[in-house]
Amino acid sequence: MSQIHQIDRTSITTYFQSLQDQICASLEALDGKGRFQQDNWERPGGGGGRSRVIQGELIEKGGVNFSAVHGELSDTIAKGLQMKGGKFYATGVSIVLHPRSPMMPIIHMNVRYFEAEQGRWWFGGGIDLTPHYVVPGDATTFHQHLKSVCDVHHSDYYDRYKQQADNYFYLPHRKETRGVGGIFFDRLGDRENHTKDQHFAFVRDVGEAFIPIYTELTHRNRALPFTQQHSDWQRVRRGRYVEFNLVWDRGTKFGLMTDGRTESILMSMPPQANWMYSHVPEADSAEAKTLSLLKKDIDWVNIPTQE
Amino acid sequence: MSQIHQIDRTSITTYFQSLQDQICASLEALDGKGRFQQDNWERPGGGGGRSRVIQGELIEKGGVNFSAVHGELSDTIAKGLQMKGGKFYATGVSIVLHPRSPMMPIIHMNVRYFEAEQGRWWFGGGIDLTPHYVVPGDATTFHQHLKSVCDVHHSDYYDRYKQQADNYFYLPHRKETRGVGGIFFDRLGDRENHTKDQHFAFVRDVGEAFIPIYTELTHRNRALPFTQQHSDWQRVRRGRYVEFNLVWDRGTKFGLMTDGRTESILMSMPPQANWMYSHVPEADSAEAKTLSLLKKDIDWVNIPTQE
Repeated sequence: MSQIHQIDRTSITTYFQSLQDQICASLEALDGKGRFQQDNWERPGGGGGRSRVIQGELIEKGGVNFSAVHGELSDTIAKGLQMKGGKFYATGVSIVLHPRSPMMPIIHMNVRYFEAEQGRWWFGGGIDLTPHYVVPGDATTFHQHLKSVCDVHHSDYYDRYKQQADNYFYLPHRKETRGVGGIFFDRLGDRENHTKDQHFAFVRDVGEAFIPIYTELTHRNRALPFTQQHSDWQRVRRGRYVEFNLVWDRGTKFGLMTDGRTESILMSMPPQANWMYSHVPEADSAEAKTLSLLKKDIDWVNIPTQE
Repeated sequence: MSQIHQIDRTSITTYFQSLQDQICASLEALDGKGRFQQDNWERPGGGGGRSRVIQGELIEKGGVNFSAVHGELSDTIAKGLQMKGGKFYATGVSIVLHPRSPMMPIIHMNVRYFEAEQGRWWFGGGIDLTPHYVVPGDATTFHQHLKSVCDVHHSDYYDRYKQQADNYFYLPHRKETRGVGGIFFDRLGDRENHTKDQHFAFVRDVGEAFIPIYTELTHRNRALPFTQQHSDWQRVRRGRYVEFNLVWDRGTKFGLMTDGRTESILMSMPPQANWMYSHVPEADSAEAKTLSLLKKDIDWVNIPTQE
C-alpha cells in the first residue's frame, strides 16, 4: 500500500494537541466551575508533554494528558511492547475523569500513534466506561454511540473492539470487568487493509466522540440525589479502579517501570479509594446488581433499556 | 550437611499457627477493643489458611494471615519464583497493620518456609516499618531491636538483611523507600552455612520480635494528638503503600496473578488512601522532613535520637 501523500507525524501530533485543547475547553464548560491546571514537562530521552488536571464541581479529579515523545527504544521497553528496539516516536491523548457524584461514571479515553524503525507505524486507542452503579440504559446508549462511530469505518470494528475492551478491562483476581467496557484497539497500522488516512480518520472520530458521550451521561446523571452509602460504594469501586490500573494496565505498569513522569501516569488514580475486607453487598441491593453486571460479553447495544 | 533429626515441615507449620495465635491474642490486648474475625479457606490445588482481620481502636485495619499450601508448581508460578516446577509446600505468617492514628507507623512482618523437589527447602521473612511521619528516635529503636535479634544468629545478618530491606521496600517511580526499612531475607536454606534448626531458630526470633517491637512503638505514639492535616497526610502515605504493594511487591503481584485468595492477599490494603496530583509538602514541614528521610542507606542504628 502506498504511503505517499498520507498524513505525517507532525500533522497527527498537532491534531492530538488541538484535541486536548477542544476537550479541555468543553470539560470546563460542562463542569461549570473547575479550571484545568497545566504542567509542561520534558522527557530526558526526547520530547515531552502537557499534563492538565481539573479539580472541579462535576469532576472531582480529572486528567487530560497530551504527550509526544521520541528517542531510542531500550530493550526493556521494547520487550514490554513485544517489539524490537531502535528509534521510536509516540504521541497521544489520554483522559481519566473521576466525578464527584457516585451516580456519574468514571470515563477513560485514549488515542495514540506510534512509529518504529523501518517505517513501521500504527494507531491505538479506545473509550471505556466505569460506572460506580451500572445503569443498563446508560451502558446501552454508550455502546450504541461507539457502534455508530465504528460502523462508519468498518462493519467489523465495533464487535471486534468491543470484545477487546471486555478482555482488556478485566480484573482476573476479582473475576470482574472494570466497568461496562467500550472499545479498545491497538496496532491499527501498516499491515491492515486501510490507508493511513483512513485509520487516522477513525481515530479522530473516536477522540471526537468523547465529549458528546460524556455530555449526554452528565446530563442524565449529574443532578441525581445520593447518600453516604452511595459515596462509600463509590470508594470501593474506585479501589477496584486502582487495582486494575496498578496491577493489570499495561500502559501504567509500563510507564512506572520505565521511568515515565509519575504524576502524569498516576493522574488516573482516584482522589480517594477504600478497601474493606471481604465486603459483600446485601442481596438484591443496587451494589449487588452492579457486581452482577460486571461481566464480559454483555450485548449492551441490543439490550433494551430496563430502567 | 545432614538433615537427620532436623525440624520437619509439620513442626514448622504448627509453630507458625501458634505464632499467629500468640500475635493475635497480643494485638487484641494491645488494641483493647477490636477482636479478630477469622476466615478459614481452602486452596483448590491443596492446603489452605486462616485469615484473621481486626478493625479496632488502635488498629483501624489489620490482617494476620496463616497459610500452609501445597501442590504442583505450575510453570507460570515457577518462573515467577525463578525456580523449576514440580511439587512444593509453602507455609507462613504474614501481617500488615494500618493504625488509626497518623502518628503510629504501619508495620509489616512475614515469616515463611518453602519446600521444593529434590529435598530443597528454605526460609524467608522480615519486618519493616512504614511511619506516616518518620520519627528518627523510633526508627533507631526499631533497627536496634532488629539488630539485637540478628546478632544472636550471625554477625553479618543485620547489615545484610537491612540492605536487602532498603532495596526491596523501594518505590523507583517515586524515588522513595516505603518507610524506614527493617530486615528482609529470603532463601535461607540448604546451601547456607547453618543447619535447618539454626535457620528456624532465627526465623522464630524474628516472628517473636514483632509484638515487643509493636508494643513499644504503640506505647510511645498511640496517645499523641493529631489534626486533620496529619490524617490527610496519612492517606497520601497510604496511597504510596498501595502503589508499592500493587506495582512492586512480588508476593502481592504473584498472588494476584496466580489466582490466590484475593481477600487474603489484599488484606494489606489500607482502609482508605488518597491521591493528590503533584502534591508537594510545604518546605520545612513535618511532611517534607518525612519525605527527606525516605531514603536507602540511612544508618538508623547509629544515628543518635534527634527528637
